[in-house]
Amino acid sequence: MQSIVCHAANDLRLEALSLPPVGAKQLLVNVAFGGICGSDLHYFQHGGFGTVRIKEPMALGHEVSGVVEAVGAEVTGFTRGQRIAISPSRPCGHCRFCQSGAHNQCLSMRFYGSAMPFPHIQGAFSDQLVIDASQAHALSDGITLSAAALAEPLSVGLHAIQRAGGVLGKTVLVTGCGPIGSLLIAALRRAGAAYIVAADIADLPLRCAKAMGADETINTMADKSAFAKYRIDKGQFDAVFEASGSEAALHLAFDVIAPRGVLVAIGLGSNITLPMNQLVAKEIDLRGTFRFHSEFATAVRFLNEGLIDGTPVITAIVPANEALRAFELASDKSQSLKVQISFSGESTKH
Amino acid sequence: MQSIVCHAANDLRLEALSLPPVGAKQLLVNVAFGGICGSDLHYFQHGGFGTVRIKEPMALGHEVSGVVEAVGAEVTGFTRGQRIAISPSRPCGHCRFCQSGAHNQCLSMRFYGSAMPFPHIQGAFSDQLVIDASQAHALSDGITLSAAALAEPLSVGLHAIQRAGGVLGKTVLVTGCGPIGSLLIAALRRAGAAYIVAADIADLPLRCAKAMGADETINTMADKSAFAKYRIDKGQFDAVFEASGSEAALHLAFDVIAPRGVLVAIGLGSNITLPMNQLVAKEIDLRGTFRFHSEFATAVRFLNEGLIDGTPVITAIVPANEALRAFELASDKSQSLKVQISFSGESTKH
Amino acid sequence: MQSIVCHAANDLRLEALSLPPVGAKQLLVNVAFGGICGSDLHYFQHGGFGTVRIKEPMALGHEVSGVVEAVGAEVTGFTRGQRIAISPSRPCGHCRFCQSGAHNQCLSMRFYGSAMPFPHIQGAFSDQLVIDASQAHALSDGITLSAAALAEPLSVGLHAIQRAGGVLGKTVLVTGCGPIGSLLIAALRRAGAAYIVAADIADLPLRCAKAMGADETINTMADKSAFAKYRIDKGQFDAVFEASGSEAALHLAFDVIAPRGVLVAIGLGSNITLPMNQLVAKEIDLRGTFRFHSEFATAVRFLNEGLIDGTPVITAIVPANEALRAFELASDKSQSLKVQISFSGESTKH
Amino acid sequence: MQSIVCHAANDLRLEALSLPPVGAKQLLVNVAFGGICGSDLHYFQHGGFGTVRIKEPMALGHEVSGVVEAVGAEVTGFTRGQRIAISPSRPCGHCRFCQSGAHNQCLSMRFYGSAMPFPHIQGAFSDQLVIDASQAHALSDGITLSAAALAEPLSVGLHAIQRAGGVLGKTVLVTGCGPIGSLLIAALRRAGAAYIVAADIADLPLRCAKAMGADETINTMADKSAFAKYRIDKGQFDAVFEASGSEAALHLAFDVIAPRGVLVAIGLGSNITLPMNQLVAKEIDLRGTFRFHSEFATAVRFLNEGLIDGTPVITAIVPANEALRAFELASDKSQSLKVQISFSGESTKH
Repeated sequence: MQSIVCHAANDLRLEALSLPPVGAKQLLVNVAFGGICGSDLHYFQHGGFGTVRIKEPMALGHEVSGVVEAVGAEVTGFTRGQRIAISPSRPCGHCRFCQSGAHNQCLSMRFYGSAMPFPHIQGAFSDQLVIDASQAHALSDGITLSAAALAEPLSVGLHAIQRAGGVLGKTVLVTGCGPIGSLLIAALRRAGAAYIVAADIADLPLRCAKAMGADETINTMADKSAFAKYRIDKGQFDAVFEASGSEAALHLAFDVIAPRGVLVAIGLGSNITLPMNQLVAKEIDLRGTFRFHSEFATAVRFLNEGLIDGTPVITAIVPANEALRAFELASDKSQSLKVQISFSGESTKH
Repeated sequence: MQSIVCHAANDLRLEALSLPPVGAKQLLVNVAFGGICGSDLHYFQHGGFGTVRIKEPMALGHEVSGVVEAVGAEVTGFTRGQRIAISPSRPCGHCRFCQSGAHNQCLSMRFYGSAMPFPHIQGAFSDQLVIDASQAHALSDGITLSAAALAEPLSVGLHAIQRAGGVLGKTVLVTGCGPIGSLLIAALRRAGAAYIVAADIADLPLRCAKAMGADETINTMADKSAFAKYRIDKGQFDAVFEASGSEAALHLAFDVIAPRGVLVAIGLGSNITLPMNQLVAKEIDLRGTFRFHSEFATAVRFLNEGLIDGTPVITAIVPANEALRAFELASDKSQSLKVQISFSGESTKH
Repeated sequence: MQSIVCHAANDLRLEALSLPPVGAKQLLVNVAFGGICGSDLHYFQHGGFGTVRIKEPMALGHEVSGVVEAVGAEVTGFTRGQRIAISPSRPCGHCRFCQSGAHNQCLSMRFYGSAMPFPHIQGAFSDQLVIDASQAHALSDGITLSAAALAEPLSVGLHAIQRAGGVLGKTVLVTGCGPIGSLLIAALRRAGAAYIVAADIADLPLRCAKAMGADETINTMADKSAFAKYRIDKGQFDAVFEASGSEAALHLAFDVIAPRGVLVAIGLGSNITLPMNQLVAKEIDLRGTFRFHSEFATAVRFLNEGLIDGTPVITAIVPANEALRAFELASDKSQSLKVQISFSGESTKH
Repeated sequence: MQSIVCHAANDLRLEALSLPPVGAKQLLVNVAFGGICGSDLHYFQHGGFGTVRIKEPMALGHEVSGVVEAVGAEVTGFTRGQRIAISPSRPCGHCRFCQSGAHNQCLSMRFYGSAMPFPHIQGAFSDQLVIDASQAHALSDGITLSAAALAEPLSVGLHAIQRAGGVLGKTVLVTGCGPIGSLLIAALRRAGAAYIVAADIADLPLRCAKAMGADETINTMADKSAFAKYRIDKGQFDAVFEASGSEAALHLAFDVIAPRGVLVAIGLGSNITLPMNQLVAKEIDLRGTFRFHSEFATAVRFLNEGLIDGTPVITAIVPANEALRAFELASDKSQSLKVQISFSGESTKH
């Protein structure tokens, strides 16, 4: 199989990796589309993030869709030609976290394209993959393979909402409207949020946020006073989802969230100064959220049924043989939200 | 009435304040004991904390017990001579927080001895007080008036446990074992925590923590490696209560708490660097907790029935006419945990 | 004002009642539409339900919309001509339930058209009403006054979902697809349920359920084996909402609900045999749900924004001067779901 | 090994069963004490309960303690002579319930002494057992082997409290004060219930309930009016635990429980008429609870540390060679609460 392999910062190569045999409970899949995620970009640009470094060549990628090419002997429910979304979440099933339903916290997680463990977990940006049948989620006729590759980042949003304890009827703020934030907004709308405010420092993501269902968008660089009305009476938002990783956004969140509100922090980032007096006096719940597991099936279902349309986040589709261009394009936030790589040669946007 | 009034940092005076008339739903109370709280000390030592400053003379104190001296016309259930604990929590009952059961977040709270609003809310360190009957909680024969004045800081601990979502069967760490932390430990034991580790940088509070029910005490200055066993497999504590306000303690908490654990921050403090990657990747719930409201009744009940004995935290009782000495003694952490002021002249420890 | 007053079973009269003066915080409203609810029908058909009996003439109705005619001196935010939905929920604000956020359990609730207390609480089926400004919820341009009168039964559904603890990503069954069940289905879809099965004994409500967003409809009279697939492995539904009041439906629910599932019982009904062994061994949560309070604002918002379209439940609109015909029509389940009364003379369907 | 085997109703035999080999991760245990549970009695008296029937000879018993006799090759942490409590809960670890932390709902549970599956799961009333090391919980020096055999029924109570969502600070009623109800009361006290009322129809269990920590005991046969004060204002109990299986007790619970209260049903029983109008109008949560899993470790810890003393429930200890007498004694509710069988010949009470 041909894979997009990162050797170090700015050292991305298209290489032939050997395909493992197809086990009895596995599927061979021709990969269709793979979305470039922020963590892929971090490996590409910096060779890692925080204390995590690439120490051996690692295929990137974990947001993939494809078409079943071959079916293991004991697999039921899938046939050759079935179009699927592929979950990158592969927990062990045995550790104390798996046994308590917190599979995303698995002590031996093999999540695609992660340099956290060593040897690294190879990613899914390959033209072919051998996957466990349990990773495969069948697609409906109505959804494109490109749209299906959004199931993964959408799952991140759905898990964030579960971490928040639900949002039905709530007034919600999302700070940071890149692909994760924008897909989260679509998920919030579907999960019954009553009023959704989207904030960012740029207009491209805010236009996307609006298309995904935000009731109000605020450019925090352009309009410094827009949040004044949300600061009154100790704060007005029942829940805030911080998806920008910016300290300024987190501090804004503490100002405008209501007492006993839930502030969900999404995505890894640098250390940040915590306004402890606000956290304590307003009794804020600041909750981390990380990846997902069971939410992947829900994400596919919402996409399959047209209950969520994620396609406004896709700004470009680039063939795999131009992978470097795809990563450079994804790095340019002025024109890109989600950039997908086409492994079947398809290059038009969906 | 004679009150202990703070005019500015290090300017504490015993002054005569005028006693308001006793309303139909009120009680006149002869105050017995008043415990000096960390916030009282802050006003005394620094004239405030954070951005909160004393801008007019303010009587201090909010941890008080007493004996009913006169009963308003419409009050039932109390007679002259009844010994009581007095709740300092006086919410408005009308704002959106009161109407949702979050009375401690009341927009017009009149909590005793607080310089947050202006005019300030006068405190309870007076030989007499006129209180609302709803603030009075009858004492059983078995409890001393000194012990009853612990109902307030014990309520803080009970509310913190409610904020944590309960601790039954859980493995719990408490960092900071002053009066709040130690009374919290007694409350955790009573609330069914399975295993309680107490950490502090000094031995006096750790001895108290042990007396209050901790299973294990760790002096983090003396034993740097004691927490190694709690760091394994992503962390071992189901819940951590941070009562020291120290950045080092918060960072320790993030290391040893288990994924999806609840980390409750108690007490106001300075800003702190937040280890965002741990918060996100381990999906920690960092929750503020602030004062209490309905928990006061529970605290009195536990004390009345002997289900919690808080007296090990009391290190000294000083007569009101030596108030300055009491505050200086309370400021000396090497020999003091809870210092109480006696308004009836009683100076022996309980 | 002209009101639709029930004197006893089958004794419905159009009578002139005196209009109270408009208080400073009140509004005078010209009522537009009023939906006939199951409880209205019970009063009309049987003079009450359970032990509740009509003991004095009582105006019926609590699902109403209207247009502001006059505005009290202290009211802000409303002007003459404003179209509104009217909440029938009038809690006292002072009792222990109001002070804990459970306003629908208020000890002195004055819910429109209820014979539970005596004197009875008069209902809202009048051409004019004086209401508290807090009951009024402004409508957007995009919604008809007829559709707005669905805010009340939609609120019942939203509260039922809150009682269930949310449904995001869940597989859900609704038994009984009259107006309450069908509007609940729309609310479940909006609240993020992943898969919704609707069951009833008749096709008219099932067609409505489908229009409201059900993924699958089952006529339990016509297809006895349709639920076999949902009985396997101890049951498959994460949540069941029982809106039929039928014992057979409740027993079906116990068969097909998964262990630890939540079974929400909506609407008053006769006593029912409880399958205790299933409740215990499968650890079912059987939860009652009753009316609503804060959910009314959310319902209006969803209707205003087109996030929920409730109009498929409206099967007829009848002028107020034909009120008896309206009640008889509403009593005929073979052709009626929600029958609304027009107080402005409008008789076409929306 | 010698086992107490039930062949049919009233057909109890002491028989030699063959001991399986000790696996690498297993322990051979000399059983010390075994408590007779209500389900054991049902098998003995009626040959089963509900639709469950004994279809082949089955050893009874699941409340056992013992001493390690031999240790499998891969077992760490246990040596010969270690005294242990033995958990009867043996879930598969793989099914969807195990993978979500609901091990007690395992689709392939092998709980000791259960005729629900066929072949039946043999029980633990034998002089020797081969167990998985994961079933063994080490005892402290301070606890007797007789007291340790109470860990199992105490776990049932702890799980019931978890099902209730905790009881810290709550006013609680327990109906039915046999061994399960009385041990539950001790657990409620330890879990921080503020006020505990115990109700039964006989004085022997009520005396035990008092010894276990109940604040108030009510003989519902002797005092018909004792609950009048708990019926006011829609009901006064925050939580009720129904452990009698009696319809009258369940109906009492609905009368005295507060709106939004949690009513936990413990133990299998016959069908019961459900007061649907109360369930709905008061929004009661009626929750089943069934066995336990992780709570066993907590139960052993509370017993080991003396945080719960369960011994008041033990009314007799009978040697295994008089097993029939033990079962007959246990059947006599006028003199028996918990009857234990001694497998080591010890016959004095603990």
